[in-house]
Amino acid sequence: MDFPNAALGVSSSTRNIRHLPSSTPSLPRLRPMNKHDGPTEKYEVIIIGAGPAGQMLNLLLARYGLDHHSRLCIDSKSGTVKAGQADGLQPRTLEVFQSLGLADEILSQGCQMWEFAFWNPSTTHEDTIEQTSVVPVTEGIETRYPHEVSIHQGRIERILEENLSLYSRQGIEWGCKLLHVKMDESQDSQFPVVVEVEGKNGHRRTIRCKYLVGADGAHSTVRQSMGLQLKGDSLDSIWGVVDLVVESDFPDLRRPAAIHSATGSVMIIPREKIDSGESLTRLYVQIPGDIRLNGNHEAAKGWRKSVTLDHILGHAARALRPYTLQPKEGGAVDWWAVYQIGQRMVNQFSVKDSSGMDRVFIVGDACHTHSPKAGQGMNVSMMDSFNLAWKLLYAVNGITPDAARLLDTYHIERHTVARQLIDFDHAFSSVFSGKTTTTPENVPSHGLTSDQLREVYQAGIGFISGCGIEYPESLVVNKTSQASRIPIRGTNHLSGILCPGRRLANVVLKRYADGVPRNLHDEMPYDGRFRILVFTSNDLLDPRRTSALTLTTMGHSLLPTFPDTLVEQLVIHPTLNRRFTWLDIPLIVKHYSEMRLYHGIDQVDAYAMFGVDPTKGALVVVRPDGYVGVIAELVDVSRVAEYLVGCLGMKSGGSDGTKMPPRASL
Amino acid sequence: MDFPNAALGVSSSTRNIRHLPSSTPSLPRLRPMNKHDGPTEKYEVIIIGAGPAGQMLNLLLARYGLDHHSRLCIDSKSGTVKAGQADGLQPRTLEVFQSLGLADEILSQGCQMWEFAFWNPSTTHEDTIEQTSVVPVTEGIETRYPHEVSIHQGRIERILEENLSLYSRQGIEWGCKLLHVKMDESQDSQFPVVVEVEGKNGHRRTIRCKYLVGADGAHSTVRQSMGLQLKGDSLDSIWGVVDLVVESDFPDLRRPAAIHSATGSVMIIPREKIDSGESLTRLYVQIPGDIRLNGNHEAAKGWRKSVTLDHILGHAARALRPYTLQPKEGGAVDWWAVYQIGQRMVNQFSVKDSSGMDRVFIVGDACHTHSPKAGQGMNVSMMDSFNLAWKLLYAVNGITPDAARLLDTYHIERHTVARQLIDFDHAFSSVFSGKTTTTPENVPSHGLTSDQLREVYQAGIGFISGCGIEYPESLVVNKTSQASRIPIRGTNHLSGILCPGRRLANVVLKRYADGVPRNLHDEMPYDGRFRILVFTSNDLLDPRRTSALTLTTMGHSLLPTFPDTLVEQLVIHPTLNRRFTWLDIPLIVKHYSEMRLYHGIDQVDAYAMFGVDPTKGALVVVRPDGYVGVIAELVDVSRVAEYLVGCLGMKSGGSDGTKMPPRASL
Repeated sequence: MDFPNAALGVSSSTRNIRHLPSSTPSLPRLRPMNKHDGPTEKYEVIIIGAGPAGQMLNLLLARYGLDHHSRLCIDSKSGTVKAGQADGLQPRTLEVFQSLGLADEILSQGCQMWEFAFWNPSTTHEDTIEQTSVVPVTEGIETRYPHEVSIHQGRIERILEENLSLYSRQGIEWGCKLLHVKMDESQDSQFPVVVEVEGKNGHRRTIRCKYLVGADGAHSTVRQSMGLQLKGDSLDSIWGVVDLVVESDFPDLRRPAAIHSATGSVMIIPREKIDSGESLTRLYVQIPGDIRLNGNHEAAKGWRKSVTLDHILGHAARALRPYTLQPKEGGAVDWWAVYQIGQRMVNQFSVKDSSGMDRVFIVGDACHTHSPKAGQGMNVSMMDSFNLAWKLLYAVNGITPDAARLLDTYHIERHTVARQLIDFDHAFSSVFSGKTTTTPENVPSHGLTSDQLREVYQAGIGFISGCGIEYPESLVVNKTSQASRIPIRGTNHLSGILCPGRRLANVVLKRYADGVPRNLHDEMPYDGRFRILVFTSNDLLDPRRTSALTLTTMGHSLLPTFPDTLVEQLVIHPTLNRRFTWLDIPLIVKHYSEMRLYHGIDQVDAYAMFGVDPTKGALVVVRPDGYVGVIAELVDVSRVAEYLVGCLGMKSGGSDGTKMPPRASL
Repeated sequence: MDFPNAALGVSSSTRNIRHLPSSTPSLPRLRPMNKHDGPTEKYEVIIIGAGPAGQMLNLLLARYGLDHHSRLCIDSKSGTVKAGQADGLQPRTLEVFQSLGLADEILSQGCQMWEFAFWNPSTTHEDTIEQTSVVPVTEGIETRYPHEVSIHQGRIERILEENLSLYSRQGIEWGCKLLHVKMDESQDSQFPVVVEVEGKNGHRRTIRCKYLVGADGAHSTVRQSMGLQLKGDSLDSIWGVVDLVVESDFPDLRRPAAIHSATGSVMIIPREKIDSGESLTRLYVQIPGDIRLNGNHEAAKGWRKSVTLDHILGHAARALRPYTLQPKEGGAVDWWAVYQIGQRMVNQFSVKDSSGMDRVFIVGDACHTHSPKAGQGMNVSMMDSFNLAWKLLYAVNGITPDAARLLDTYHIERHTVARQLIDFDHAFSSVFSGKTTTTPENVPSHGLTSDQLREVYQAGIGFISGCGIEYPESLVVNKTSQASRIPIRGTNHLSGILCPGRRLANVVLKRYADGVPRNLHDEMPYDGRFRILVFTSNDLLDPRRTSALTLTTMGHSLLPTFPDTLVEQLVIHPTLNRRFTWLDIPLIVKHYSEMRLYHGIDQVDAYAMFGVDPTKGALVVVRPDGYVGVIAELVDVSRVAEYLVGCLGMKSGGSDGTKMPPRASL
């Protein structure tokens, strides 16, 4: 409606942008940017490569507030990819995209995969297959998105690039190729990394930066320039991969399916609808043959080159008997390739300067290569960047008191994950290719049962989903205190039980101020800030007991310690013995947490899910990337303070600890 | 990951757009567009006004396939609105936006309202107020979104305009003003509507069209040119409205609240966060004074003009005692206005040519004006367009056999809704302003209890939410058959029980092909197509019983009757006595409904919710806008056929009925 008789209203200056999408507030800058002086082009961070890993890092830095004077992202390609390449997003990756406000199109237009089907040679009819089981893709995992999504990698890149335009005038510099990287501290110790690039027009230029990130893929120039090497073994099974619209009467064409047949293995991954209304299907097809070419790379290469699309489709059709499978019509094949499985990784994910500060990092395929079938590639790569981004920003903006130590944790955490990736992929690929020494007696000699594949899959589900990753002890993960001091019951971390180093699971809580059910993940978006979750005990309404005392200490002593906006407090309470108003709890709670006070036992019992005893409560610090940093008893504010001061320093710049808040019970 | 050893893949021509968001497929064109000849500028449809109603219509027509040669939308404003005006979206409107793929930003960045608080004068402390109840906003309503959302109208307009750019090279012609409309069949009976406009540069031009839609607001030039008149009464309560960031200790500031106090009424509507991180609040504030100015428009106008922002905020603060309320700081007030409540509407929503064909339509505020407090304006207006769009497209594209009769239903359906809107708003406003003759004895003479307001609100919840609208009998709503033939149990239509003329409620079903839980609304997006829902009975697996026979008749006789893609079949089955494969049901089901076959009793019992007996089943036709058109017994394919042929005609163009499919049981 309109107001035909309206008097003229006044207006404030910002309302003219109210029709635009919301953007995330940037982080404070506590150290000035070194001014560009002299003729040399300089940035604080340069990112080489704009695939999913590079774009994720570039976008996050822009969202945190690093503008285009400070940040450059180049890629030798002319734009985002159009076909093929990695296409699966795992539950944890979906959680991260959701937190960044980027999941909507992926969830609604991608192909959701909730169930995995396993097929074996028929026990009754020779030379045919039969379904042995259908299992939920994320069985036993507490996750906001209990499924995977397959979607075109080019879409992911487009979504990242589009969101960048909300935060940065300057996009990616496409068509710009990295020639060489070196460290040179003698000329300019503030900007010790020297990069030579060649732009679209063939024009070469030299650029300096404080930090360089190589997201330039399996053939990484950054990695090679810095003398780092991919190491690992290479299996010799040859596989074909095809994206196409199929015509088939195979019953499990629309769910992911692992097919083990007498003539070889096939994996089916359903993909998204295309504009014709038809759905794409991805096939991974084992190409049978002599697999004893180990070591003879030339022979293997020659064999690989001889494999045609018709071979791949022929093998697929044979493996699926008694069902038929063929491309729907001429032109139904979108893309295909032939590859050999190999798992390799780099021993060191960063290179330090002479002072011990990490200056060059590598992320994604530059660090680790592996087979595509578990759909990990794009996920682990983007999560490398997600792990590095806030640490890099904290170093650049001077937020952390010990940048070198914080940056160290990138290698500590992501190298651990890469090791798991390689190990899992090795086991999964071996079983799927039928190459293992544990073949049971009752299995035909041509391979393994898909039951074994299922076992490997389910053992790895925490890793595959991304929700079971656990980072080791470091500056940002504190887990070494006596276990009895961590007030958490239960050990099934996949079901949500809290654990330092693991990501906080999502749960729906009812917000006090407006009665709106909220997803906890939406209440603490991954925007570069730390959060303290105060799980009060059921004594909250007694001002002389622990919950109220802790909240008072938090509000009056701890929270003011840190630079504004860097630490947010969420307060969760269990069921209490009566209704309450703001006046029944410490006044300071409304000041810091008016829209962050929740009933934790409404639709779901968050206390039970997280393993918090409602009679005791707990304090939990969650890092900017959603991982639990430290857990303390409700009374133990000083433990929280110690952890946060280690990561963030203090507002005044002091660090002698005299201002550190005491235990709430004092 | 990438494929370093990949052979070169082939590519299909469409894969280059796979990285873009999906778009909705357009509808078939069965009648050629009349070529533009001669010097006169011509379109098939012209829309005057690009507020929410005009933009919704323009976007839908573009999505259905009407390109910029056929369609023009002009607006005299220079762009979308920046502040004030309508800001509430109701549950049904959210369902429609979701179906169009436009709800994500609204749901995540708007302000969700789940609970409504009612406040009364305190029974114990004079001159103060106390909370009497907090009720769910959509109590008793089965809806996908059990809440309202408040959000800037400019954002809605921006979202609609952005989506338009996916479908149409040509956007809205801003700064172009309508001068006059007339009907002139003598010169060009194909394009009988003549429009004179003045563009940005002052250049006047004359344009002809087949159909004209006036979405040009309360002062509609289209309405005035066609001699239609707004009629109704005008109450004289004066209200102030303010959007601002408040500082207040009122406990229900973050939920919508109706406050009845001794000094006047206030309504609080929480709004979305702005970029500062603060939340806007909308206040509707009753300005007390002599309300017996009825009839003396000049006096009322003078009084209105004397009301200032300070008056409004002063009255609000007084009504809220003992709580305080003030603007947060200088500049916190975003927009304010003063208005008087009035309910008026037009008797006829369209104007016919001499042949009886509707040629000029009005939608939105041009048809009906009312008070803003129930948050209906933008909703009813956009739903006017949503109702008209597919009918207009069917007429233009020659899809329907009787365009005049189909277009008639726009007035039949939306005039009914407008009448309800006016009646509801009158009742709600009267109670809220304290002007009714039913004041109980125990209530102070200065007004009413909010209990009465709550009663009016809850009686109107079906209408307010938009989910309880019921269209009357017409070509597109068939409800006159003997009630015993409609195989539906139950009458609580707000809880989801099926009823011709009401919208089909959403429910989650498990899809057979891939085991993915799907929202029924997402499976039948409002894209201009009719859907037949076959609720099979539990005899599905017996090929000689009704379910299988009906599905066979549907697939072999009925579905091929209609132009391709215009009618989709969804098949829902109850729990059966065994697992089944595609081979256990009629083969034709997979052909038409491979991705539209669902288990209807998985997480939710859809049969119970819709009132379908699992031992009997039912056939349900859903219109392109999501409203139930007809319900038939499972055996009665001919009833479905009759309804659809009336709306759509038949593929061959024949209409003698001889090809119409028989009863399934023949």
